[in-house]
Amino acid sequence: MDYVNVRYTDKKPKLSNPILIEGLPGIGNVGKLAVEHLIESIKAIKFAELHCKDFPPQVFINIDGTIELVNNEFYFWKSKKKNQRDLVLLTGDYQGLSSQGQYELVEKILDIIEGLGVKEIYTLGGYGLGHEIENPRVLCATTDKNLVKIMKKHGAVFKKNEPGGGIVGASGLLLGLGKLRGFYGACLMGETPGYLVDPKSAKAVLNIIMKLTNIEINLSALEKKAKEIENIAHQLKEIEGLGKEKSEELKYIG
Amino acid sequence: MDYVNVRYTDKKPKLSNPILIEGLPGIGNVGKLAVEHLIESIKAIKFAELHCKDFPPQVFINIDGTIELVNNEFYFWKSKKKNQRDLVLLTGDYQGLSSQGQYELVEKILDIIEGLGVKEIYTLGGYGLGHEIENPRVLCATTDKNLVKIMKKHGAVFKKNEPGGGIVGASGLLLGLGKLRGFYGACLMGETPGYLVDPKSAKAVLNIIMKLTNIEINLSALEKKAKEIENIAHQLKEIEGLGKEKSEELKYIG
Amino acid sequence: MDYVNVRYTDKKPKLSNPILIEGLPGIGNVGKLAVEHLIESIKAIKFAELHCKDFPPQVFINIDGTIELVNNEFYFWKSKKKNQRDLVLLTGDYQGLSSQGQYELVEKILDIIEGLGVKEIYTLGGYGLGHEIENPRVLCATTDKNLVKIMKKHGAVFKKNEPGGGIVGASGLLLGLGKLRGFYGACLMGETPGYLVDPKSAKAVLNIIMKLTNIEINLSALEKKAKEIENIAHQLKEIEGLGKEKSEELKYIG
Amino acid sequence: MDYVNVRYTDKKPKLSNPILIEGLPGIGNVGKLAVEHLIESIKAIKFAELHCKDFPPQVFINIDGTIELVNNEFYFWKSKKKNQRDLVLLTGDYQGLSSQGQYELVEKILDIIEGLGVKEIYTLGGYGLGHEIENPRVLCATTDKNLVKIMKKHGAVFKKNEPGGGIVGASGLLLGLGKLRGFYGACLMGETPGYLVDPKSAKAVLNIIMKLTNIEINLSALEKKAKEIENIAHQLKEIEGLGKEKSEELKYIG
Repeated sequence: MDYVNVRYTDKKPKLSNPILIEGLPGIGNVGKLAVEHLIESIKAIKFAELHCKDFPPQVFINIDGTIELVNNEFYFWKSKKKNQRDLVLLTGDYQGLSSQGQYELVEKILDIIEGLGVKEIYTLGGYGLGHEIENPRVLCATTDKNLVKIMKKHGAVFKKNEPGGGIVGASGLLLGLGKLRGFYGACLMGETPGYLVDPKSAKAVLNIIMKLTNIEINLSALEKKAKEIENIAHQLKEIEGLGKEKSEELKYIG
Repeated sequence: MDYVNVRYTDKKPKLSNPILIEGLPGIGNVGKLAVEHLIESIKAIKFAELHCKDFPPQVFINIDGTIELVNNEFYFWKSKKKNQRDLVLLTGDYQGLSSQGQYELVEKILDIIEGLGVKEIYTLGGYGLGHEIENPRVLCATTDKNLVKIMKKHGAVFKKNEPGGGIVGASGLLLGLGKLRGFYGACLMGETPGYLVDPKSAKAVLNIIMKLTNIEINLSALEKKAKEIENIAHQLKEIEGLGKEKSEELKYIG
Repeated sequence: MDYVNVRYTDKKPKLSNPILIEGLPGIGNVGKLAVEHLIESIKAIKFAELHCKDFPPQVFINIDGTIELVNNEFYFWKSKKKNQRDLVLLTGDYQGLSSQGQYELVEKILDIIEGLGVKEIYTLGGYGLGHEIENPRVLCATTDKNLVKIMKKHGAVFKKNEPGGGIVGASGLLLGLGKLRGFYGACLMGETPGYLVDPKSAKAVLNIIMKLTNIEINLSALEKKAKEIENIAHQLKEIEGLGKEKSEELKYIG
Repeated sequence: MDYVNVRYTDKKPKLSNPILIEGLPGIGNVGKLAVEHLIESIKAIKFAELHCKDFPPQVFINIDGTIELVNNEFYFWKSKKKNQRDLVLLTGDYQGLSSQGQYELVEKILDIIEGLGVKEIYTLGGYGLGHEIENPRVLCATTDKNLVKIMKKHGAVFKKNEPGGGIVGASGLLLGLGKLRGFYGACLMGETPGYLVDPKSAKAVLNIIMKLTNIEINLSALEKKAKEIENIAHQLKEIEGLGKEKSEELKYIG
């Protein structure tokens, strides 16, 4: 096995001018949620797996009791209409654990999608605010100036100095290393408190992907998940609230 | 020395359709205890050592004052009866310290056992509960669906979402990477509090190995060790209990 | 991409007996501030970028919304007068994260500057005091004994056992590894509290660089920044002071 | 530069059946102190330096203001009498920072000393007790059973299960990896509190080296240092004692 190993589980798809959409684990799991939901909604087909020596040495257990080595997965989808484009989709269990692992992994991903004819990349992620947000905006950064205008048209937001720390991980590196190799594209970052997985933020990101790709995505499953998470967050807040009152009381006493 | 180095201390054994049974250090040292006990009980013969640059830079000191570089060790055992199979056994001082080390080590182990004709792998470990358990069950996960039925018949337990975090380390990776190379098998995880080494859990695991292999294993030494550990646990609990009373008293005062 | 990758953004400059001046992020960002200011003041021209798998997997976002992979950057400047020398300037976003990364990066930098005809290296950094300082001195260490005299003449200070911990990072390694390959030069370390970025210390360092290179550097921008930072430090101190009073009050009460 | 790089600062010495004595930084710096003192006392001659990408990226500053890349250093000494043997001595600023670095470094050291005709290795270190000790014993472990007897004769102590954690670092690895390549020898570990550098423990170790090598070593410098450290320890204890009294008073109040 190479440091990063690609294994085709289906034959390599023949695609016409496809776009890559990436969503790996990260803040609020926004990117991963969005891409997983997209894959399910459009019934994209898995064709390859990546394993990497910089992933944790771990297997997950399926419902039927069988194991699965942690990985990243590639899916594809063929366009149905004239105004649509073929898609390559990337999601997975982990990002590389180390800096070097991240660079190696992204280089391999770029090799693979280059071989599939991809030139355009959209990476999805979360932008952690550390506080709650009613209507999450979707921040954006692009490889090229002319893409800024297009992304704004689709509802993405550009704010000077946001995110101030740049973009860390595969979502940033795919664009950064990709740009050096002639790829272009954008990163969409849904605002999120960042405490819990955030389907609401994932939905906001997918709304822009819909406009960008002219693909209808059924968002009802994400909306249902978002309500469940809202309930959990509410309950956690109540428990916390009780704790605070108590500790305030204690402050008066002690 | 290679990153992972194999050194034959005896000539490479000729085995007929052997099974690998692995038990390296981990939670409650369940897997290591079980395999070490198995080796002793059936008088398996050591034939190779693995050294690895991802093991700690450390030697242990034998009772006679001589040193031994930390390693992993291979043993073999030849079947005595028609309903038994030849065994390859793997135990050792450490697992790899880093992700990459774990992957490299397991790849090398797979290379070696492939060369010995192994196709079937059983990996032994502990499943940490964080609380005491009277009768530890043995959880299981397999590479193939049809093995689930067989392992259930031998008394292994399959519980949806357990272990939720999957299997981390060599026990998981041997199956996960092995499966990609055509090996099949299962991981047996004895329930354990996880605080101390747990011979009781190791015994539970070996009970299933006995049924699986039709090999009689003398468990008396493990049972003796289990009682010793129980006594130690009891004493620790008493000390802790005293500590608690005291700290409660202090709470009234302070 | 290699572990350390050089990418020429302009054609390789032809220089006559050039000097390297390096300033990468570090204590008080003294070195980076100094070299960035020097680049701006003399209008040096960027000609190459370094990317490295030991940098964080990160892109920064420009004001126009486009991304930039984190890097180190090379600039050059051609002398205007007889008593000046051509310059190569090195600054950037990060140093290598790991020991090995630092060594690999510095080896690559030495390869590049060797190819440009550089033999003399000046590395700039901060010397963290942990307390405020009115008039920061500039400590110095050199590759060769005869350089000590020259640097003293220009105002650099040599103090026995300072810095006691030596010089850690690219500023030290460029001289240490460089010396083994026949380069010579010095490290200039401006005294700094080390809490905040320190333009005052950077200015002190550039004062010596001016004498060393016979290049007039306009320090007004640095002086302006220094005043801003002084104000911030003052405000932080006031807040801290208030905090202290409060906690002292609390001590009397509680 | 290779991952581990050897640089001959003098011509490779021609030695007759030499012994390696190693002392690198570690607990109480016992090994380093002992070998440095030995080098000084017998006026051994430096002939090579090791640099390693797993050492910190650091230079130290000499008293004359010049820098020195952190390294390990080899010295040699030629026997003066018939009952003496030629020596190779190894000391330095650091051990490798990572496991892999330690293995690579020790493999390189073994390559070098093999080339010099060394077959016998003595590694020196400290054995941390965590409490003070009037007369530090010197614990020992060897590669071969027959060396145990010889080392006992020279005053070294063998205690079952001590050190229980084995020997970590270059002192252990030189014997562990060396044994696999046909070297033999012993590790001498002077008992030490482990809080401060410990010349008293280094002296105890050198006493055994004297018997082993029939070389007279002037220990007066070590004895002087030992007294200085004793005074410092005494002062620290007094300060601590005052602190304790105070905190006991506070306990009565609070």
